[in-house]
Amino acid sequence: MMSQWHLARGYRYAGIVSGLRAEPDRRDLAVIVSDRPAAAAGVFTLNRVRAAPVQVSRGRLPRPDCRAIVVCSGNANACTGEQGLADARRMTELVADELGCSPEQVLVASTGVIGRPLPMPVLVAGIPRAVRAALPGAEALNQAAHAILTTDTGIKVATREQPGYTLTGFAKGAAMIGPNLATMLGFLLTDAPVAEDDLQHVLRAATDRSFNCISVEGHTSTNDSVFLLANGDGPRLSGPELAAFQDAVTGVCVELGRKIAYDAEGAEHLITITVEGCRTDAEARQIAKTVAESALVKTAVYGADPNWGRIVSAAGYAGVPFEEKDLSLWLGDMPLYRSGTPLPFDPAAASAYLKHNREVQVHLKLTLGSGRCTFYTCDLTAEYVRLNADYTT
Amino acid sequence: MMSQWHLARGYRYAGIVSGLRAEPDRRDLAVIVSDRPAAAAGVFTLNRVRAAPVQVSRGRLPRPDCRAIVVCSGNANACTGEQGLADARRMTELVADELGCSPEQVLVASTGVIGRPLPMPVLVAGIPRAVRAALPGAEALNQAAHAILTTDTGIKVATREQPGYTLTGFAKGAAMIGPNLATMLGFLLTDAPVAEDDLQHVLRAATDRSFNCISVEGHTSTNDSVFLLANGDGPRLSGPELAAFQDAVTGVCVELGRKIAYDAEGAEHLITITVEGCRTDAEARQIAKTVAESALVKTAVYGADPNWGRIVSAAGYAGVPFEEKDLSLWLGDMPLYRSGTPLPFDPAAASAYLKHNREVQVHLKLTLGSGRCTFYTCDLTAEYVRLNADYTT
Repeated sequence: MMSQWHLARGYRYAGIVSGLRAEPDRRDLAVIVSDRPAAAAGVFTLNRVRAAPVQVSRGRLPRPDCRAIVVCSGNANACTGEQGLADARRMTELVADELGCSPEQVLVASTGVIGRPLPMPVLVAGIPRAVRAALPGAEALNQAAHAILTTDTGIKVATREQPGYTLTGFAKGAAMIGPNLATMLGFLLTDAPVAEDDLQHVLRAATDRSFNCISVEGHTSTNDSVFLLANGDGPRLSGPELAAFQDAVTGVCVELGRKIAYDAEGAEHLITITVEGCRTDAEARQIAKTVAESALVKTAVYGADPNWGRIVSAAGYAGVPFEEKDLSLWLGDMPLYRSGTPLPFDPAAASAYLKHNREVQVHLKLTLGSGRCTFYTCDLTAEYVRLNADYTT
Repeated sequence: MMSQWHLARGYRYAGIVSGLRAEPDRRDLAVIVSDRPAAAAGVFTLNRVRAAPVQVSRGRLPRPDCRAIVVCSGNANACTGEQGLADARRMTELVADELGCSPEQVLVASTGVIGRPLPMPVLVAGIPRAVRAALPGAEALNQAAHAILTTDTGIKVATREQPGYTLTGFAKGAAMIGPNLATMLGFLLTDAPVAEDDLQHVLRAATDRSFNCISVEGHTSTNDSVFLLANGDGPRLSGPELAAFQDAVTGVCVELGRKIAYDAEGAEHLITITVEGCRTDAEARQIAKTVAESALVKTAVYGADPNWGRIVSAAGYAGVPFEEKDLSLWLGDMPLYRSGTPLPFDPAAASAYLKHNREVQVHLKLTLGSGRCTFYTCDLTAEYVRLNADYTT
């Protein structure tokens, strides 16, 4: 896989074992360095409780001259008061001192347990070491992608080679995934030349169709951050070139979002929910999100129980006005409910479809317009409960 | 317990084994008969997908002359199209034929699997038998309370003896509990004299503070219905008497709602979430509901893991504007977070509190006003997942 990654030019990566985590050999501190000042954009959680790194990074974006991002895992630096803000700023100062730039040119993100102060001596020792270790290339990216993980079972990388430039993305996320503008941590790097205001617009549009269309359990994190850096030289992209760039960024974000839902904690199924025929895309998304976050729908998929009434009833309480006769439902290729009336179906075949496919499709169709949404979620398993019943203690 | 029930005068009950369910000895069909025409009110699910009995009963309320309610369990008669509506109406006709009243004087409710047609021959045989079997007294009420259950582990009954009249309530509900105006099935019977419009107002106000403040997994059912019948003779209650009646009805509804959360599928903890200091009661309820429906909060309680960041972060994404410094949190009597700053606490003591109490208290306090809410939910356990992974098949 690594050999197939497309790497944007002019970026270096590191992912080191700083000692933030109890596991002795676990990478927990990443840095991304742009050799040249890069235009930078970011989208962040809409949670009212925002982690310190979110507050610090948000205040610095968009900007034309970003040099680096520093990321620690294992500790979210959230709900940590004034000390947390000072610590997040200090993390960026440590990077800036190494690079000889201003701290404002450095962004910061964290993920892990909420409510614990950062062990700053560990970071004061580790951050300069990480910056000095940063290298270009797939192996260095691989180490950085590992260093940002928490309960993820593997790294999430998506890249695109476009005419004239390259797009490299990586992300983490396996729980506390409930999208609201951005979800999880995501890093997108390109060597395309893009103005920072355009970059911000592109990132927000891409996020709305990707990271805002995934859910594990609907819990919007305090630390959600997605960054997009563009360090290309030359005339800025515009017109059709900028539109193509938008498509490429959206494609990378959708691929990363899908990987997050696929790798969700304890998940045995990736569930793709397609809703079409709504008045607006936003209404389609609202229905898809409500179905995606129903514990009853998710446990039914886990148990290979084709209990489709749970899907229809979840659509019904999404807050979108419709009549039953407007609604039809398919599970995979099997029609189960058409225009408000149940259809005869083979429960054994429907159960087998759920049992034997790692990826399953739920398709809801209404007759109210052309609004649509594709949403990714996972099943709710006993393993998810086990993993989350004993996380901090 | 049964000997302590207070029974409103002038009501008869039956709960019989009609054969709707596969289990040979399981009661599955209930009727409640008022000897005299009763004022009647109802509140129903806000789900856009409304079961046939909800559509039929809603169209008949409020009214001054209700004679009976018929309830079947095991089949929700939801998502069943025109046939389902005809079947629900037929159920009321069968009762009316026995009582010699109009079908419009009979209400109907159902609960169980969605999307399957009712086996009408079973009901055509069973309903007349149930009406003829209806008797006053605790044993008959006990049988009716059993006949409405689905996955409940026991009946839920709450009664009040007030000066001059009696209030008798019973309910069912253990999953697909996500309040929106009404949740679950509930039946409240009184021999007080109350006009039907006052009754409707009293029931809605009581529901807002009880059944709308409970959640198991936030899935608003297609069948939620709560009925209140008042068959008393004489001058209608008004002024302070009506206010006292309101308090009594609210008290019975809160007690029934709490019993539902306590008996939720697979639950090992009843979690009482108190939110105060909000701008309005509605904002307090919104925060409480969001915390109550967070899978991460619910699994942490299950695992006795005092991971309080999950509670604070859930409050943060409830959609209610506040700043971190406005927020404080207690778990039981233990302060964990004050004015946006984490407090030192003993994790072992906090874990022991969760482990050794069947009922646990979460208390969130803001500084924005006097709005408050008490909300009841349960933990999310591996047993909940197991129960719901294989329900219909």
